[in-house]
Amino acid sequence: MTESAMIEMLLKNRVSWLSDSGPEDDIAISSRIRLARNLDGLPFPIAANPEQLLNVWGAVQLTSVQAKCVPDQILFEMQKLKELDRKILLERRLISREFLIDKPGAGLIVSPDESLAIMVNEEDHFRIQALRPGFQLKEVWTAIDALDTVLGKELKFGFDSQLGYLTSCPTNVGTGMRASVMLHLPGLVLSGQINAVIQGVHKLGLAVRGIFGEGTENLGNLFQVSNQSTLGETEEQIIERLSSVIQQIISHEKNARHALLEHRQNFLLDQVGRAYGILRHAYIITSEETFNSLSALRMGVDMGMFSSVDIHTVNELFILSQKAHLQKYAGKELSSEERDVTRATLIREKLRSIDKR
Amino acid sequence: MTESAMIEMLLKNRVSWLSDSGPEDDIAISSRIRLARNLDGLPFPIAANPEQLLNVWGAVQLTSVQAKCVPDQILFEMQKLKELDRKILLERRLISREFLIDKPGAGLIVSPDESLAIMVNEEDHFRIQALRPGFQLKEVWTAIDALDTVLGKELKFGFDSQLGYLTSCPTNVGTGMRASVMLHLPGLVLSGQINAVIQGVHKLGLAVRGIFGEGTENLGNLFQVSNQSTLGETEEQIIERLSSVIQQIISHEKNARHALLEHRQNFLLDQVGRAYGILRHAYIITSEETFNSLSALRMGVDMGMFSSVDIHTVNELFILSQKAHLQKYAGKELSSEERDVTRATLIREKLRSIDKR
Repeated sequence: MTESAMIEMLLKNRVSWLSDSGPEDDIAISSRIRLARNLDGLPFPIAANPEQLLNVWGAVQLTSVQAKCVPDQILFEMQKLKELDRKILLERRLISREFLIDKPGAGLIVSPDESLAIMVNEEDHFRIQALRPGFQLKEVWTAIDALDTVLGKELKFGFDSQLGYLTSCPTNVGTGMRASVMLHLPGLVLSGQINAVIQGVHKLGLAVRGIFGEGTENLGNLFQVSNQSTLGETEEQIIERLSSVIQQIISHEKNARHALLEHRQNFLLDQVGRAYGILRHAYIITSEETFNSLSALRMGVDMGMFSSVDIHTVNELFILSQKAHLQKYAGKELSSEERDVTRATLIREKLRSIDKR
Repeated sequence: MTESAMIEMLLKNRVSWLSDSGPEDDIAISSRIRLARNLDGLPFPIAANPEQLLNVWGAVQLTSVQAKCVPDQILFEMQKLKELDRKILLERRLISREFLIDKPGAGLIVSPDESLAIMVNEEDHFRIQALRPGFQLKEVWTAIDALDTVLGKELKFGFDSQLGYLTSCPTNVGTGMRASVMLHLPGLVLSGQINAVIQGVHKLGLAVRGIFGEGTENLGNLFQVSNQSTLGETEEQIIERLSSVIQQIISHEKNARHALLEHRQNFLLDQVGRAYGILRHAYIITSEETFNSLSALRMGVDMGMFSSVDIHTVNELFILSQKAHLQKYAGKELSSEERDVTRATLIREKLRSIDKR
C-alpha cells in the first residue's frame, strides 16, 4: 500500500479519542501519555548518523517486535510522505512539528484507531504515545506501561539505575513520561476564572498550554494540563498527583457552567445559539472563529441544547477544520481565502446532514 | 368594543402591505400616498379650540360620510388609547409621532387590512393614507383619489383655485400629497453605490429617508423615497416623475445584486447565511442587529437561498420586532435588556415554526 493510501485509510478509520465516549468527556476531551525511550549503545537522534538512524527504524520492524508492538500497526516512513500528509499526521496529534522536516530514519507506527503510536527517531529513538477519550489517565498508563514492557523485552532501552530512563533532553530523564489531559473549559473562561485556575496549576508544578501551540491558550477554550517533572517520583505518583488536580479543575468547570446557567442563562444560550447558527449557515469562516464557535457548541451540547449534535461530532470538527485536513477534503492546495470557504462548506454540510437525521 | 380589543383585532388581521404580493416586491416593500385635507371655515388643528377639534372628529362620523369612507372601518379616539397601543399604531405606520401626545379630537379611521387610514386632527384636519405592497403608486393613487372624491362630496375641503388645497404647513399647499415608496436596497449598500444614488435622487428634487426616522438611513437598508414639492404639478405628474426615478433605483439595485452574486458570491452567501443563523438561533438581539439581519435575510430570500422563508415573513418581522409590538407580545412592559431577549424569542419561534412546515 502507498503511504498516501495509508493516510486515506487513517482518515476513514474510527478514531477512538474523537469518537468513543470516556469518563467526564463533557469536559475532558482526551487523556494522553507519552514515554521517551532510547536504544542502549546508540547515540540520540540529534547525534546519530543516517546509518544509525536507519538501524533504529529497522529495530522496530523486526518480526518479533512487530508481533508484540501495536495491533494491526500502520507504518509510515516519513521520507515517503508528501508534505500535506505529514501535516495531516501533525493535526491528528500523531507526530510533532519536528517530523515535518525531512530526516532519514524518521518513522511512525500507529494503530488503526490512533490510540497507540510510536514516533521513531524524533528527539528520542522512540516516543511511545497512548491516547484515549475522556479523563482516564490511569487506564492510559496501564495500556502504555504494558506496551513499554513488551517493547523493553525485545529492545534494550538506555536505563540508569540512579536516574532511570536516559533521554536526549535532560527534562525527560527519569520516567521519560509526559502525561496530559486536554480539557475544554468554556465555563471558566466565560466566568473570568481561568487565569486564577492556570496560576494555581502552575504553582503545583504542572504545565498548562493551549492545544494549538504557544499563545493559543484561549482558542477554542481548550487547555492541555500536563506534568513538568520526570524525576523523583514514580509514574504512578505523577499520574496520581496530576489526576487529582485535573479532577479539581473539572469540578471548577462544572460549577462555573452551573453558575452561568443559573445566573446568566440567556447570555449562555445566546453564545451557544449564535455559535451554532454561524457554524450551520456561514459561507466563510476563519479557523479562529471556528474553534471558538465549536467550543460554545460543545458546551451547548453538554447543556442539552441540541438533540441531534453530539460532542463527538464537535470533537471531529475541531480536527477536520484544520488547514491540512481541509486541503485533503478539497483534494487540492488552498489559499487562505479558499480555506475559509472550504471550512465553512465542510462544517455546514456536516451539521446539515446531522440536522436531517 | 373597547379600544384595546380593537387593537388586538388589528394585530390579528391580515395586513395587506406586509402579507400580499405586489409588483417588484423583492425590492419595493410598499407604496404609500397621503393627502392633507382641511374643512373649509374651521381653523387648522394647531389654532383650533377643543370644541372645533371635536367638530372635525364628529364630521367624519356622520352616517353619510361613514357609508362612503373606509370599508369596515375601525375608529380609534386617540384619547381612549393607552400609550402602548398608540405606539403600536405608530409602529404599524398608521399614525405619526404627533399622535402619541394627548390631544382632544384626535382620531384614527382605519380599514381592517390597514390599506386605508385617516388621521383626524393631526397637523391637518384629515391626513388620508393609502398603502399597498410593492411598487404600485398609480394604483394607490387611483384608490386614494376615489376616496378623496367621495369624501370631498360630503365634506367641504378648504381649496383655493390658484393654490389648490389649503394646508396647515405651507410645504403641503397645492396637491397636499406626499407619495412614497419604501425600498429595500442592500445591493446598493453592500456595493457602496448607495450614496451616489441618494445624491442623484436629491438632485431631482425628491427626498430619501431611513424608515425608522432621521439618521437611520442604513438601518435595515430600508429607504423611503418621496416627492418634496406639492405645487406646480398635478398629482399625476408628480407620481409619474417619482415612479420613473424609483423604477431606475430598482434597476440599479437589481444590477448591484447580480454583480455581487457574480463577483462576490461567497461574501453574499456568507452575509445572508450568518444573518439567518443568528436570527434563527440567538437568544439576545438588539433592534439594530435585527433590522440588519432581516435585511440580509430578505435579500437571501430574493436570491432563492431559502425555500421555506418568504419575504412576507421578513416584512412582518420588521414590524413585530419593534419596541411596542414586543411589549404587546410579552403582555407587559419590558426593559431594554428584556426586549432584546423577547425579540430573539419571537424571531426564533417564528423562524422555527416555518422551518418545520
